[in-house]
Amino acid sequence: MKQLIKNVHILTMDEEWTEYKHGYLLIEENRISQLGPMSDSLPQADEVLDGQKGILLPGMINTHTHTGMIPFRSLGDDVPDRLRRFLFPLEQVMTPKLVRASAEYAMAEMLLSGVTAFCDMYYFEDEVAQAAEAMKVRALLGETIIDMATCDAKDSADALAYCESFIQKWQGHEMITPVIAPHAPNTNDLKTLEAIAALSRKYNVSITMHVEEMTYEMEEFTEKYQQTPIAFLHELGYLDQEFIMAHCIFMTEEDMELVKEYKDNVRIAHCIGANTKSAKGVAPVRGMLEHQLTVGLGTDGPSSGNTLDLFTQMRMFANFHKTHLAERGAFPAKEIVQIATAGGAKTLGLFNQVGSLEVGKKADLTLVETQSVTMFPIFDAYSALVYSANASNVSDVWVNGQQLVKGKQLVLRDVQVLRAALYQQMDEFVAQAKRKASEV
Amino acid sequence: MKQLIKNVHILTMDEEWTEYKHGYLLIEENRISQLGPMSDSLPQADEVLDGQKGILLPGMINTHTHTGMIPFRSLGDDVPDRLRRFLFPLEQVMTPKLVRASAEYAMAEMLLSGVTAFCDMYYFEDEVAQAAEAMKVRALLGETIIDMATCDAKDSADALAYCESFIQKWQGHEMITPVIAPHAPNTNDLKTLEAIAALSRKYNVSITMHVEEMTYEMEEFTEKYQQTPIAFLHELGYLDQEFIMAHCIFMTEEDMELVKEYKDNVRIAHCIGANTKSAKGVAPVRGMLEHQLTVGLGTDGPSSGNTLDLFTQMRMFANFHKTHLAERGAFPAKEIVQIATAGGAKTLGLFNQVGSLEVGKKADLTLVETQSVTMFPIFDAYSALVYSANASNVSDVWVNGQQLVKGKQLVLRDVQVLRAALYQQMDEFVAQAKRKASEV
Ligand SMILES: [Zn+2]
Ligand SMILES: [Zn+2]
Repeated sequence: MKQLIKNVHILTMDEEWTEYKHGYLLIEENRISQLGPMSDSLPQADEVLDGQKGILLPGMINTHTHTGMIPFRSLGDDVPDRLRRFLFPLEQVMTPKLVRASAEYAMAEMLLSGVTAFCDMYYFEDEVAQAAEAMKVRALLGETIIDMATCDAKDSADALAYCESFIQKWQGHEMITPVIAPHAPNTNDLKTLEAIAALSRKYNVSITMHVEEMTYEMEEFTEKYQQTPIAFLHELGYLDQEFIMAHCIFMTEEDMELVKEYKDNVRIAHCIGANTKSAKGVAPVRGMLEHQLTVGLGTDGPSSGNTLDLFTQMRMFANFHKTHLAERGAFPAKEIVQIATAGGAKTLGLFNQVGSLEVGKKADLTLVETQSVTMFPIFDAYSALVYSANASNVSDVWVNGQQLVKGKQLVLRDVQVLRAALYQQMDEFVAQAKRKASEV
Repeated sequence: MKQLIKNVHILTMDEEWTEYKHGYLLIEENRISQLGPMSDSLPQADEVLDGQKGILLPGMINTHTHTGMIPFRSLGDDVPDRLRRFLFPLEQVMTPKLVRASAEYAMAEMLLSGVTAFCDMYYFEDEVAQAAEAMKVRALLGETIIDMATCDAKDSADALAYCESFIQKWQGHEMITPVIAPHAPNTNDLKTLEAIAALSRKYNVSITMHVEEMTYEMEEFTEKYQQTPIAFLHELGYLDQEFIMAHCIFMTEEDMELVKEYKDNVRIAHCIGANTKSAKGVAPVRGMLEHQLTVGLGTDGPSSGNTLDLFTQMRMFANFHKTHLAERGAFPAKEIVQIATAGGAKTLGLFNQVGSLEVGKKADLTLVETQSVTMFPIFDAYSALVYSANASNVSDVWVNGQQLVKGKQLVLRDVQVLRAALYQQMDEFVAQAKRKASEV
């Protein structure tokens, strides 16, 4: 099947920053087979979409989220220590069906906002994988391992066993990549952290983990080990693996020097919106990039983010880093779009497949319409994406060559049906949530 | 005419934080005549709108913008000293027709995002007033006075004369309030600043001005007068007038103590998005509120903001102030919604008319739909507005009892027609803009 998208402003995000201000792109089966200016003679196709001067860019990549957590959205947003007051207790009542319904809903939300691939960690991750397969999205998925009884494991040994069978089941899938997801350096004991590194080596799978996100995490490691968490993980061999570290808010200069030696396989999922909403701070992204580290954007979960789109993150990224550096010119819009697309793909180890619009790459594409009132004028398409657009401007989305969003609607599913299915699973959660909220 | 809005979650933003989770509101002519829970027997009406569990709140109030500046959007966003490189030179080519078309477009954008009243300062402000009248919005409008030749005045005396006839023409209008808009303390000479204060007294009109926005403004006043700009303006009698100070990023403790004595008539338009995008910093809003000062939100112009909606500002406000104070619990969502509505109305001196949903107030209302994917679940409607919603979720808007947005569309106008009309006036602007951009 050949699909032609014409009359669009193409931001390829390739190494040369190639742009076609008035361009076309051809999808053959699941790959990009041709692209260029409209002045070319256009190829034949089975389907033709007139993009009406919309902006076509690589599908955006959400490098850190928790798709199972839609039920938590708008609950206790402004409450201190929400992790221990709301998240941990309520996670005890999560069920496989609830996670499945939440994950499908979250994936619908991401697709509608132009996100085509993501990295997830949660419980009942096999349900998330089934949801991803059903929703036809691209994903790295990791079962969370944490040193406490959870909704799907009585202890971390149990979680490790779940993890291993999860890897065995999903490894080799075209769209789904199983990973291992220890919760954080301070929420797993040494023995478990070692077993995780061994499991990662055994199956050659990536690890993703919350790292250097909490002040108390930093303090604990200074006190117990006179080390940063990253230095500690280095000794355990984590930096030898493909390793996606979420947050890294408190990454030190020494951490960066250390990680630089492993820059081909250790990358950072930067969650500026979640980090600043929770008042934790602004991760040193300029320093990371100066040390040649790879950085992508993440929304974190719907209870932290609270939306799963990268437009919100791009805008937050611009304002926070410019202000943090006291430098208006820092991180111009095009660099931010690059981090949200190519940067994300590199962070998840997917850049050989997606993250830029080039012949031969998988066709993961996002089309942003420019008819909405804020999208005029457009002197600079990158600026328009970062400063003027919001997630609702995404009109069409393709993943692996298949169109999953058309005219701002899901093609294969219906959001209201997904919502009803999720709500049906939420009775016990809502009852417990209201109890918790009344205690605040 | 009676209009009934039923089946909505009403956030009244009154003093008691009254909420009707399942409520109705009746508009009679241009005022709110009744509101309450759906369990009441509902009043008769000529028109009934089923809000489908949307969130009904007071129309949001944009306390500082420049509606004439739509042509500048996405131009030179990340360029240092953009004010002198792009804004001042390009403002020389503004024409009355261009300002008029831009202002109508900007007002359409604000209406579609739920903004029902705003404070504007620009050139050819009479065109802006005509636009506001045509678009049926509520506005405080001020002709800019600046110590240089501009597109509509050869010097500041000329601008003052424009200003006076503008006041004479529009004073007493039901929806439009003329104000005086000196550009900034450092861009007008002493004589002009004194004449402005006198003009304000003569006609009893408010002043609005950029104040303590620039580091070089602060330095200049320290050097020349050993005073802050606010202390300097105090000596000129500005604090005796109704005075809306935009920005106040660098407001000192002493400034706050001083302004506290004039808190009934001196207020602050806080533009967090514009201030942080330009890397200027985070205004001390908590300090302002601790000094009992009144604060509203502003977007600044479309070249600074870049959108004119307050959802973007509310989200930025939350994340920036929480992070600035290193306190997750700072400024919970409901306080932010209050600042965007009641706070804005108080800032513009309109709270006796609008800013809360109470019987007898003018019917300026915004309805936010909750069908969109991010608007679920909603444990807290304020949280949903601040953290989950974006401007595209606004479905219906009333100003002065008249419905101006219905089902996400303008009722009286068409955005594409407004865009075409604006674009038609932009030839010379675009030519000059491209020249400037090529020089960067
Ligand atoms: Zn997380
Ligand atoms: Zn301004």
